Amino acid sequence: MACHVRAVSKLPEDMAGHVPTLQFSMRLLLSPVTAVTCNEQFEIIDNAAIGIENNCIAFIEKSTPELRRTFAPDETIGGEHLVALPGLVNTHTHAAMSLLRGYADDMPLEEWLHQKIWPLEAHLNPDDVFIGTQLAIAEALRGGTTCVADMYHFYESGAKAYIESGIRACPGGVLLGFLPQAQKRIANAIAFARDFRGAGDGRISPMLAPHSLYTCDKNHWRAMLDGAQGLGVGIQTHVSETRREVKDVFDSWGATPVQTLKNIGALESPLMAAHCVHLDERDFEIMQESTPIFGRTFRVLHNPTSNLKLASGFAPVTEMLRREITVGIGTDGAASNNDLDMWEEMRLAALIHKGVGNDPTAVSAREALQMATIGGARCLGLDSQIGSLEVGKRADIAILNFDAPHLQPRHNVVSHLVYAAKAGDVCATIVDGKILYRNGQLQTLDEAEIRDAAARIAERLVNAVH
Amino acid sequence: MACHVRAVSKLPEDMAGHVPTLQFSMRLLLSPVTAVTCNEQFEIIDNAAIGIENNCIAFIEKSTPELRRTFAPDETIGGEHLVALPGLVNTHTHAAMSLLRGYADDMPLEEWLHQKIWPLEAHLNPDDVFIGTQLAIAEALRGGTTCVADMYHFYESGAKAYIESGIRACPGGVLLGFLPQAQKRIANAIAFARDFRGAGDGRISPMLAPHSLYTCDKNHWRAMLDGAQGLGVGIQTHVSETRREVKDVFDSWGATPVQTLKNIGALESPLMAAHCVHLDERDFEIMQESTPIFGRTFRVLHNPTSNLKLASGFAPVTEMLRREITVGIGTDGAASNNDLDMWEEMRLAALIHKGVGNDPTAVSAREALQMATIGGARCLGLDSQIGSLEVGKRADIAILNFDAPHLQPRHNVVSHLVYAAKAGDVCATIVDGKILYRNGQLQTLDEAEIRDAAARIAERLVNAVH
Repeated sequence: MACHVRAVSKLPEDMAGHVPTLQFSMRLLLSPVTAVTCNEQFEIIDNAAIGIENNCIAFIEKSTPELRRTFAPDETIGGEHLVALPGLVNTHTHAAMSLLRGYADDMPLEEWLHQKIWPLEAHLNPDDVFIGTQLAIAEALRGGTTCVADMYHFYESGAKAYIESGIRACPGGVLLGFLPQAQKRIANAIAFARDFRGAGDGRISPMLAPHSLYTCDKNHWRAMLDGAQGLGVGIQTHVSETRREVKDVFDSWGATPVQTLKNIGALESPLMAAHCVHLDERDFEIMQESTPIFGRTFRVLHNPTSNLKLASGFAPVTEMLRREITVGIGTDGAASNNDLDMWEEMRLAALIHKGVGNDPTAVSAREALQMATIGGARCLGLDSQIGSLEVGKRADIAILNFDAPHLQPRHNVVSHLVYAAKAGDVCATIVDGKILYRNGQLQTLDEAEIRDAAARIAERLVNAVH
Repeated sequence: MACHVRAVSKLPEDMAGHVPTLQFSMRLLLSPVTAVTCNEQFEIIDNAAIGIENNCIAFIEKSTPELRRTFAPDETIGGEHLVALPGLVNTHTHAAMSLLRGYADDMPLEEWLHQKIWPLEAHLNPDDVFIGTQLAIAEALRGGTTCVADMYHFYESGAKAYIESGIRACPGGVLLGFLPQAQKRIANAIAFARDFRGAGDGRISPMLAPHSLYTCDKNHWRAMLDGAQGLGVGIQTHVSETRREVKDVFDSWGATPVQTLKNIGALESPLMAAHCVHLDERDFEIMQESTPIFGRTFRVLHNPTSNLKLASGFAPVTEMLRREITVGIGTDGAASNNDLDMWEEMRLAALIHKGVGNDPTAVSAREALQMATIGGARCLGLDSQIGSLEVGKRADIAILNFDAPHLQPRHNVVSHLVYAAKAGDVCATIVDGKILYRNGQLQTLDEAEIRDAAARIAERLVNAVH
């Protein structure tokens, strides 16, 4: 039942003081719980016992008195009303945009970006991003999200917030090629990825994050790709989000975004493509050739709320699943969502493709849950570590209290998780074996302090642009 | 500040014993709260005081010490973190289908109905419907829904649950014309509407509920329309939910569902039309001519989740709003949703029409909130009583705790209510001046008892069909 995890932290010296010694049980037992494993067989184990030793799952099987006695846990969490599943994986967000939540809605994309979002973002500083990221983490942990892929500015501040909070994260410095000193920014982003790889006891997996093909040019992309391949880290970018983007990329690169990515060698590294709304048949073929079952690299990050709210369209997820393309789910930033609630995204992923495809069998509850867990882990290249409840994997677990009226009667746990459960049903969130959220209380973050700080920052930002 | 409400209960003698004497403050003060009134001017009052005397709103204005002293409340609820808005109005559901939640998903409509839903429903009895309705009410009250329009079988049992719980409801006996003794069923439904009108201290407003034009024939409709007009109650029915329905109705009645309703005189009574997904230009003209601003009667009950889940399509809500047609929001039953969460419906109503219409300005947050409150009240003919926070209206109020991370910072309360708030943020639900839910505790329902009873019923039903 042992579980060995290499300590691979390469955190710079000046950050070392920020890593708290988290209080946690060395041996934590979840028993009895209904375990929705999301493993290859999609096993659901009633009356299960999940043993957690240090930061890994030591066993998961039917609960017996013998098992419970042998394991001798320091702490036990259990009850017939509890359902445990892999922590949700938010594959695409801009975490500190939580500070802009509700600042501008119901506007055309260009006006929204140019008149509202970018002017406000111009006044952000690293301390703001630290608070905004903490705010995003607080929301994530409360809702059972255990891993966040985040592309944003002042990423060192974001990473500090991730490390301190105990959550798992894939941070990347977003590059907008039109900002000054782009090559210096790229060098910094690569240095960040190198230095923070494995930080936070291995919880931090940096990525590189060129914003898109329409905001970064060939030189930017070449430098980013070389950096990613040199370090063996993945690239996250926006791909075919809007019709206009597809047209603009075609005009400047001579091919669709997906085809351009192939042409420039971007599919030789793991490529996390957010959105993928507007695709043609050749795009699909490239994505399909590049799926992990062929040892390749194209992963789709589906953001249903953001695509609706910004009127980008409906990503053809049913077709992606039919072609066995790897798909995960993301919330996008809180300025275009306006929350970071993976339960809502999962539910939407299961609903909208039925409606738009006129097919009530499209994207089943099981498929939606897989996208939000193991699918997301595959997208981030972390599926050997997280995304399912299996022996030897890191203990990233969401526990739901199934007592609420909207989860009665319990005809089907998976249906309930996707079509009825809410972030508020999460009663405990465990990351890397540590309980980070429990019964309304975050264990590593001070919510009142974050709330006050966020309010002050929001006021300052709004005053700065008025 | 007085508020006179006529007691109009015509509850049959044998039901009188079921009406509990609810404990409540004679004078309840909400202060300070942010009041989102949803009145004609859509006023939002910061630091507001809302005085509730008996079951009505006695005043709503800026909070002052003088006001608070003069009112001398028996109880005060307040805090800067509290946002009060009109209780949400669920205009279309089949409440006791909560018992079938998650029993069958991701299936084609016909197969779902014929092989799963109807066979299980055949084993329902009145006691089951009582429990199923209680389960639905528990979910509604926890999420700030204060009024429910419910069409289902064994409606006397449903009404009993509504009356006892203290919630406001518009129950109607659903008529499927192909069931035996249809005319006797119609007579019973009319007698029910007559006897229960004004029951529960005026909280019960029955309606008649022919299922649809494709399940009820001319004689059924004639009898229902005569009954409705005789009593002055409204009719609720399913209209143009699927393409197949439109075709079937055209084949048997010679016109679209909306045009047929006009042809048979159904628009001479208030007509609550659930779904309205597939409409032509003439349908729109009829709906527009019949909107309340012309003193007429066509009201649309929009059910976004159900329309997606059953792949019915997207109701053209943007166009309805442009034409000033009255639109409310409903959850439909929990077998096709799978919950009764009006926050999710409101959010979807604001999101999907942007996506499908390629217009990020479609259905603003304000419009979505209006549909879920005053719009719903208009649909049910109750807008003189509920749907907005205004002096003299019944005190049906949802109070949200805005402290959660997903509601920070508070750039825009209305945006947060629609795009970020969740049912779980509701910390108190007041109906007719009585606090029915507060901080996790329902005041008139025993959740553990309902949960156990629902589990037993579900087991019995499933065993009966296997």
